[in-house]
Amino acid sequence: MFPLNQWYVAAFAWELQDKPIARTLLNRPLVLFRTRSGRAAALEDRCCHRSLPLSFGTIEQAGIRCGYHGLLFEPGGQCIEIPGQEKIPSKARVAAFQVVERNQIVWIWMGEQADSEASVQPPEVAAHDDPRYEFGGGVFHYQAPYQLIHDNLLDLSHLGYVHARTIGGNPKLHMSAPTRVEGDGDKLRVVRWLKASEPPATYSAAWPFKGLIDRWQEIDFHVTYLAIWTGAVDAATDALDNPDRGGFHMRGFHGITPETETTAHYFWTLASNTHPDRPGTSELVCRQTEATFEEDRLIIEAQHRNMCRFGGTHGIDIHVDAGPNRARRIIDRLTSRSKEAAA
Amino acid sequence: MFPLNQWYVAAFAWELQDKPIARTLLNRPLVLFRTRSGRAAALEDRCCHRSLPLSFGTIEQAGIRCGYHGLLFEPGGQCIEIPGQEKIPSKARVAAFQVVERNQIVWIWMGEQADSEASVQPPEVAAHDDPRYEFGGGVFHYQAPYQLIHDNLLDLSHLGYVHARTIGGNPKLHMSAPTRVEGDGDKLRVVRWLKASEPPATYSAAWPFKGLIDRWQEIDFHVTYLAIWTGAVDAATDALDNPDRGGFHMRGFHGITPETETTAHYFWTLASNTHPDRPGTSELVCRQTEATFEEDRLIIEAQHRNMCRFGGTHGIDIHVDAGPNRARRIIDRLTSRSKEAAA
Amino acid sequence: MFPLNQWYVAAFAWELQDKPIARTLLNRPLVLFRTRSGRAAALEDRCCHRSLPLSFGTIEQAGIRCGYHGLLFEPGGQCIEIPGQEKIPSKARVAAFQVVERNQIVWIWMGEQADSEASVQPPEVAAHDDPRYEFGGGVFHYQAPYQLIHDNLLDLSHLGYVHARTIGGNPKLHMSAPTRVEGDGDKLRVVRWLKASEPPATYSAAWPFKGLIDRWQEIDFHVTYLAIWTGAVDAATDALDNPDRGGFHMRGFHGITPETETTAHYFWTLASNTHPDRPGTSELVCRQTEATFEEDRLIIEAQHRNMCRFGGTHGIDIHVDAGPNRARRIIDRLTSRSKEAAA
Repeated sequence: MFPLNQWYVAAFAWELQDKPIARTLLNRPLVLFRTRSGRAAALEDRCCHRSLPLSFGTIEQAGIRCGYHGLLFEPGGQCIEIPGQEKIPSKARVAAFQVVERNQIVWIWMGEQADSEASVQPPEVAAHDDPRYEFGGGVFHYQAPYQLIHDNLLDLSHLGYVHARTIGGNPKLHMSAPTRVEGDGDKLRVVRWLKASEPPATYSAAWPFKGLIDRWQEIDFHVTYLAIWTGAVDAATDALDNPDRGGFHMRGFHGITPETETTAHYFWTLASNTHPDRPGTSELVCRQTEATFEEDRLIIEAQHRNMCRFGGTHGIDIHVDAGPNRARRIIDRLTSRSKEAAA
Repeated sequence: MFPLNQWYVAAFAWELQDKPIARTLLNRPLVLFRTRSGRAAALEDRCCHRSLPLSFGTIEQAGIRCGYHGLLFEPGGQCIEIPGQEKIPSKARVAAFQVVERNQIVWIWMGEQADSEASVQPPEVAAHDDPRYEFGGGVFHYQAPYQLIHDNLLDLSHLGYVHARTIGGNPKLHMSAPTRVEGDGDKLRVVRWLKASEPPATYSAAWPFKGLIDRWQEIDFHVTYLAIWTGAVDAATDALDNPDRGGFHMRGFHGITPETETTAHYFWTLASNTHPDRPGTSELVCRQTEATFEEDRLIIEAQHRNMCRFGGTHGIDIHVDAGPNRARRIIDRLTSRSKEAAA
Repeated sequence: MFPLNQWYVAAFAWELQDKPIARTLLNRPLVLFRTRSGRAAALEDRCCHRSLPLSFGTIEQAGIRCGYHGLLFEPGGQCIEIPGQEKIPSKARVAAFQVVERNQIVWIWMGEQADSEASVQPPEVAAHDDPRYEFGGGVFHYQAPYQLIHDNLLDLSHLGYVHARTIGGNPKLHMSAPTRVEGDGDKLRVVRWLKASEPPATYSAAWPFKGLIDRWQEIDFHVTYLAIWTGAVDAATDALDNPDRGGFHMRGFHGITPETETTAHYFWTLASNTHPDRPGTSELVCRQTEATFEEDRLIIEAQHRNMCRFGGTHGIDIHVDAGPNRARRIIDRLTSRSKEAAA
C-alpha cells in the first residue's frame, strides 16, 4: 500500500510520442499514451475482451486500438468500437486515471477511490520553465523500494563516499556539516551548509570559482517528489540564506513513483545556470548528474538485495538519519490513512 | 490436468536423428529418441540410478545409455545392462510411453493409466503424403497455456490486426465475415467465407489471381490438433463448397501439446499447392506462415502474462468467440473425465 | 543445516588482493578480505547501519570501510569509526569469523556457537608446499548441493563415461575395477586399482609410459574436503601399495564448501610431478583437469535439476555406490549433532 490521493509522476511529456508506453505505477499496470489529437491518457493496460495489453495496440485520433481484435478505447476508458459488432456492451470498458501535464511533467492522480478526481492542481516545477536555467533529465528503474531513494536523497552525507568522482568533495566534511531539519505537515526541509570547502569536480567544471567555496543543500521533501536546490558561491562572498545569492545553482527535481512494493521509477531533471564564460556546461552538469544517480542506484539496489537476504533486520541509526526517519514517519502516516480509507 | 487417452504430437519424424531430445509433455519430462535400429521411443527422462537425465546419454542399437555410469535402457523402459554388475534388479526400469509414427509425425499416447496402450490408430495427416502439395513446418515453444493457442486458431478474425503484413487483408472485412460453427462430439468445425476481398500479400505472391478473390477458412478442431484448410479462387469463379474447387490451397496442421499447465509445444506444418507459373512458391508460403505464427506467439504470450498479473479475471465475450468457447467446453468435459479416472 | 565445528575452505590465499570478495558460506553471506596490513578476515557482509554489503566498501590498514556512509570495521567485527559522530555505540558491530591461512588455503571455522574459536589447526595440504610437485587450481560455483560433488568424487567409476576425452580410459574396465572402502570415524578411504590398462590421454601426454599401465586411485574423504591421490606406473613394474613408488603422480585437493542447501563452492587444486623428458606438463595436466571438472559440473547440475523436477525420489543403488553412501552417513550423523547443539 502507498499514500493515495496524491499526484504522482507518470512520465515526462516528451516520452509520449507515437507509441504507447507500458508502465506499472503503484501496482497498477497502465498504458500511457497521447492520442493523435494530443491528449495524454492513462488506462488499465488490459483489453477487457481477451486481456492483451493495450500497450500492444496502436494510437488513433480518438484513443487506443487493441492489437488483437481491434477494440477501440477512448481516454476515459470506454470502448467505442468493436469491429464487426454493432452493439457495444456497457461493461466494455477499462479503468481510466486522471492525467494532467504541467511543466513538461505528466502527473497522474492515484486516488483512494476508483475514478476519483483531484481537487488540487499538480505541483509546479518552476525551473523547467525558468529562462535562467537549462535542464535535462531521464528515468531510472529501480529494483528497490521507493523509500530507499527518499533515504538517499534526504541524507546527502553519502556524497563523499558514493560520488567522490563528481559532486562528492571531502567525505568527512560532508559527514560533519551542520544539518537543520524542519517539518511542516506532510513536508520536510533539510538544510546543510558546507562552508569554505574544496569545490568538487563537477562544480569546478561548471563555474569559475576562485578557490574555496561555500556550498548549500536545501532539500524539500514532498510525498511524491523532492526538490533539491544545491549550489555554491566563492567562500565568504555571499550569505547562504540570501534568496538572490549569486554563484552556481542546480535545481534538481526527483519524482519518485512506486512501481510495486519493491520496485520504483525515478524521474529526475537537473536545471542549472550557466556562467557567461562557460557556455554549454549545463549539458555536462546533466551528464555528470546522471552518472551520479547511476552510482546511487547501484548502492541502493545492493542495499535492498542485502536487506532481503538478511531478513530485513533494521540497522542502527547514526547522526545523519534524522531527515530520512522523519520522512518515513510521514509516509507511514499517509499510508495508514489510505489503508483505512480502502477498508 | 489435461485430456488423457489421447494421441498427442511428441515430435516430427525428422527431429529424431542421432541425438536424444529432452521434451516435457503434459507435465512428464521425457527423452525422445530413435534407436540405431530405427525405432522411435519415449522414456521418462531420468536414470533410475542417480537421476541424470537420460537425454544426456547416447543412443545405441538397443536403446539409450546413461551418460553418468553407463546403464542401458531399451525402448520399453527396462534396464538391460549395468556395467560392472552382473545382476540387474527388476526395479531398474523407467516409465515408457507408446509411440507411433504416421505421416512424418511422432504421436505419443498419453493414457489415463500408466503403461496403457491405445486401441485406436493416431490421426492421419493426408496432406503430408499427398503429391499435390509440398509442405514444411516447425516447432514453437509457448510461454502460454495451450488453450490460448486453440482460441487463436479458432478465431481467424484476428488476422487483419495481427497479420496485416502477410495473410491479413482488410481487418473490418475479417471481423464481419459470416461464420458458421458446427459441433460433433469432441470435434468442432468453424467455416468462414470472405467473398470479393482483396488478396493479402502472401496470396498474391503465391498465385496469379486476376483481381478480387473469394476466400474460405475451414477450421477442424480436434482435441490435440487442428486441421485448417484455407485458400481462395478468383471472385465468383467457383463455389466455396465445391470439394474439387481450384485456386490456391493451404492445408495447415497444428499439433498443440501442453508442456505444463502454463506452457505448450506448437507443432505446425503448412502444405500448399503450386501454380505452374509460380514454381517454388510453397517455400515462400511456408516462411511467411512461420512469420505469422511468430506474430501470434508474441500476442498470446503477452496475453498470458497479462492474465497472470491481472489475476486471471475473465474478459467479456464478443461475436467472434463462439468457436473458441465451444472448444473450451470440449476440453473441460474431457479433462473432468480424465480427472475422475485418475481419482 | 550442515556439519558445524569444522574448518571449511573460504578462499585461496591468492584470491584476497586489494578488493573484498562477497561469498556466501553455509548460508552466511560474508565479505572476505585481507587488510592492508596483511591479515585475512571474514565478516558478515552487511553494514550494521543501512545494510549495504561491506563488500561494496574499500580496504584500509585497519579493516574495511562501508561504501555508503563510511563506517569502518576491524577484522573482529567492531565498528571503529563513524565519520562525523564521536560516540560509537557498542552495538555498532557485525559478526566475525575465525580465519586461518595454511598452505595457501584460507580456512574458516564454522562453529556451532557464534564467535566460537577452533581448538584444532586447519588441515595440512602438503602437496602445495612440496618441491616434487607443481600445482594450480581454481574455484567452481555449483548450482547443486555439495553432497552430489562428494558422490561424484567418491565414485570414480564414472570416469569412463563422463571423461572419455581426458582421464577416462576404458569405461567397462573402470566399472569393474576392484574397489576397497575403509572407514575410520569421520574419514573414509576408497582405493581402486586398474591394472594393465590403456593409459588415458592426459596420462600419455604427461608421462612417457611404455605401454599398458597399472593405475591407482586413493580417495581420502574428510568432512569438508577430499584428497585424491591418483597415478600410474608402467604395468607390472612396481607395487601399487609401495609408498615410494615411481611413475606419474597427481595429488588432487577438493575443498567443498556448501554455499546454501542447494548450491556449493568447489575449490580444487591439482599438483603433479614432471618427468625430466616432459618439462612443463603440469600446466597441461592442470588445464585438462579443469576441463574434466567442468564436465562433472554439467553432469551434477543436470542431475540436481532433474532430482528437483522429479520430486527428489531416490534412485536404486548399484555396486559403485558403497563409498558415496558411507560418506552420506557421516555427513548425516554430523549434521544431526550440529542441529542438536543449535537447538
